[in-house]
Amino acid sequence: MSAFTKLVEHSQKCSRFQHLASICGWDQASMMPAGGNQARSEAMAELSVHIHGLMTQPQLGDWIADAENEALNNDQQSSLGEIKRQWQQANLLPEKLVEAKSLAGSKCEHAWRSQRGENDWVGFEKNWREVVELSREEAQIRADAANLTPYDAMLDIYEPGTSSASLDVLFADVKTWLPSLIDEVIEKQSSEQFSAPSGIYSTEKQKALGLEVMKLLQFDFEHGRLDESVHPFCGGVPSDVRITTRYDEAEFVQSLMGIVHETGHARYEQGLPKHLAGQPAGEARSMGIHESQSLFFEMQVGRSDPFIGHLANLAGQQFSGSEFEKDNFQKIYTRVKKDFIRVDADELTYPAHVILRYEIERDLINGKIKHTDVPELWNTKMQSYLGLSTQGNFTNGCMQDIHWTDGAFGYFPSYTLGAMYAAQFMASMKQTVDVNAVIESGDLSPIFTWLESNIWSKGSLLNTDDLVKGATGETLNAEHFKQHLMNRYLKG
Amino acid sequence: MSAFTKLVEHSQKCSRFQHLASICGWDQASMMPAGGNQARSEAMAELSVHIHGLMTQPQLGDWIADAENEALNNDQQSSLGEIKRQWQQANLLPEKLVEAKSLAGSKCEHAWRSQRGENDWVGFEKNWREVVELSREEAQIRADAANLTPYDAMLDIYEPGTSSASLDVLFADVKTWLPSLIDEVIEKQSSEQFSAPSGIYSTEKQKALGLEVMKLLQFDFEHGRLDESVHPFCGGVPSDVRITTRYDEAEFVQSLMGIVHETGHARYEQGLPKHLAGQPAGEARSMGIHESQSLFFEMQVGRSDPFIGHLANLAGQQFSGSEFEKDNFQKIYTRVKKDFIRVDADELTYPAHVILRYEIERDLINGKIKHTDVPELWNTKMQSYLGLSTQGNFTNGCMQDIHWTDGAFGYFPSYTLGAMYAAQFMASMKQTVDVNAVIESGDLSPIFTWLESNIWSKGSLLNTDDLVKGATGETLNAEHFKQHLMNRYLKG
Repeated sequence: MSAFTKLVEHSQKCSRFQHLASICGWDQASMMPAGGNQARSEAMAELSVHIHGLMTQPQLGDWIADAENEALNNDQQSSLGEIKRQWQQANLLPEKLVEAKSLAGSKCEHAWRSQRGENDWVGFEKNWREVVELSREEAQIRADAANLTPYDAMLDIYEPGTSSASLDVLFADVKTWLPSLIDEVIEKQSSEQFSAPSGIYSTEKQKALGLEVMKLLQFDFEHGRLDESVHPFCGGVPSDVRITTRYDEAEFVQSLMGIVHETGHARYEQGLPKHLAGQPAGEARSMGIHESQSLFFEMQVGRSDPFIGHLANLAGQQFSGSEFEKDNFQKIYTRVKKDFIRVDADELTYPAHVILRYEIERDLINGKIKHTDVPELWNTKMQSYLGLSTQGNFTNGCMQDIHWTDGAFGYFPSYTLGAMYAAQFMASMKQTVDVNAVIESGDLSPIFTWLESNIWSKGSLLNTDDLVKGATGETLNAEHFKQHLMNRYLKG
Repeated sequence: MSAFTKLVEHSQKCSRFQHLASICGWDQASMMPAGGNQARSEAMAELSVHIHGLMTQPQLGDWIADAENEALNNDQQSSLGEIKRQWQQANLLPEKLVEAKSLAGSKCEHAWRSQRGENDWVGFEKNWREVVELSREEAQIRADAANLTPYDAMLDIYEPGTSSASLDVLFADVKTWLPSLIDEVIEKQSSEQFSAPSGIYSTEKQKALGLEVMKLLQFDFEHGRLDESVHPFCGGVPSDVRITTRYDEAEFVQSLMGIVHETGHARYEQGLPKHLAGQPAGEARSMGIHESQSLFFEMQVGRSDPFIGHLANLAGQQFSGSEFEKDNFQKIYTRVKKDFIRVDADELTYPAHVILRYEIERDLINGKIKHTDVPELWNTKMQSYLGLSTQGNFTNGCMQDIHWTDGAFGYFPSYTLGAMYAAQFMASMKQTVDVNAVIESGDLSPIFTWLESNIWSKGSLLNTDDLVKGATGETLNAEHFKQHLMNRYLKG
């Protein structure tokens, strides 16, 4: 058996255990009664140790070296490259650091769940200090191995190949036009009237509506399900994708568009190349590309004029009221407001939230600022980008997100990269597909065919840059995103 | 660290992987869309190989030998005994035989799913021959190791300590009175009138009713759930027990009593000793004792006069109609009928189905009969015990059950052992608990307290004989079962 074949079989073995982790993780979030948590957490931790053990087996280094001397075709070379990358990532960190970070992160995150509501920065800071220290240690080890700056080495986990140099350029561009665009749109919308949700929208009907929307988006129910969880997510495995949402009977806005968003993630997973199942090359490319698909569904398709028409029609089959008229739906789903909370932010202000976090975490991990500088920096940047003060308001300021509590530094940029990729994909797609007519028709197949052939079926065979160039003819830039926002929010 | 402690930690590690297998198995049966099956089956097989590898690690034999020389208290000695038993079971069979039997069993079972409906004994026999041969091979290896007859060695898997010598005595007793009792009851019931289910009973309402009944039976919803599957079962783990049922909107009889049955299994699991969680000594004692708990709930409590009253009341909150009157409920749930199918059999004819299978599988595994003798033997015994001919009727004769298709010989007796244990437990409980008054009151706690202290909390600390003697003061005998059946079906 060739070394490459041995590596592929080993990857498939790891992926079978990850399958179990994924399903049990989904169950933990969506099905498990509270009393099952301790035993489940222990079982999941045991599995995770086992998977880490498999991924760091001593013979893998030799197999990789041998495979590099074998005659491999292009796809096999890509596959080997991804196997090597994952192997390097798994072997990079000393076990002790991984454990220490995991413990400090769990402790900080657990305490944060109550500290946030209590605006308790002092208590939070005590736990967070250690998380930041250990994350810097991690980043330095990664940086030394990859010859990158510490923050770039963290970015590389979530969006391999992206650098802060390129993010600085992209975000600098955005900062030249976004704040004034936000002001202009808010001014334009200030005179608009619309009906906000004001009834009781039963979970049962919201769910029925969500399932209809998933059908319109051609979610494959033979290979996936919709369920409920406190924090919506897309989990499971490509052959069985589990998406979740959360229903609030006082409104329908979040769950409905949340389902559109998660369906985007799901269809990417469902569309990954089946002949590479269980191999790293068959997995989704990156967090940013994953988010590009959910945002393509949510922002590019989901908030388009003809799709809003479908949503209004489908909602009208479950509910009645002026809030379900198409124009009103459009206004609800394109309303822009400067506010504190990223997860509730609209399409237009969202990048400001991300850029703020990016600038802070970059300097924090590179050691240019101290963790105790964060609240003041947050306030300053929030004032500058959205005109809001978070002085003394930690709850709605730097303590609002879960990411930093357990050291997931380098993740935030993926959200806005995703939005930009999505806009660029749409611009490119429109050169060959009459997107609005296709959506209007109710058969969105040509859109999905484009995504499948340009993005989904590529898995991780290409690096992100080549994937984007292959799909759009150019590398990522902010221009398409800008044009998209101006078209949507200033015209019409 | 003592060898005993090492063994306990190793057991807990195995049990964490079994936890994942259990939850993913539940998901596969109750949640998974069809398209997820292939990848799931591969993942489950990988996990099962891993668990088998853990349970046969070479150092375990040394640890067990060392632990046997350590100073252990009684509970620790029991625990060590169970660890040793499981270790011996796991190491007994050559890997090749396990694989061959698993393959032959899967093939036979898969083909049986269509062959049964087609009454295709000839096709079935071709596959089954190999299953029987491999099962005999397995039984011989087990027999040699345990110094038992081949069939007794198979029995030992499901009901450790039980022998065909004792089953022969028990079942010979039953055969002296059961056939005439059945005839007498059928004669008595022949003039009874009752309303059979005849409406449409919505799944939603049946589910609501089932949940109410589970509350009455004090199922712990903090540590478990009710869901749906094609074949009802009790799965999950003691801290998170998953029971399932199947709803048929044309009737409510099966799902309702099915839930009572599975709740019995579930409460046993939920009541296992928490300080022994993850150790073999903390697991349920045997298949027969497990079935004793489900049948205690279903037959002893569930079909008692006061419980039928609760069921009728609760059903009346969801549905209306004369079929829901208490007397009618009683008649529905105690109707006796000679019929072909074991899984649909009533309490009174069920033992006849089991004894027939026991006598055949005993002689088959001990090599006294050939597998091709089975249809004719089935017909003869069916004529003798229930007066029904299965001549040429394989579908409703010897091809009706799944158990033999993949070689689970030795399992069937557990069903009737369970029914007998349940009757004996009830007789003993009635010496200190006014069972009917307790059920009538709607607070069944004293019943569960008795079961918890005598059965559930014992896990596998005692062998089955000692467990039964401890709870009832005598070893298992058929007398209590006989009295129970006579009281229920001839009096009143």
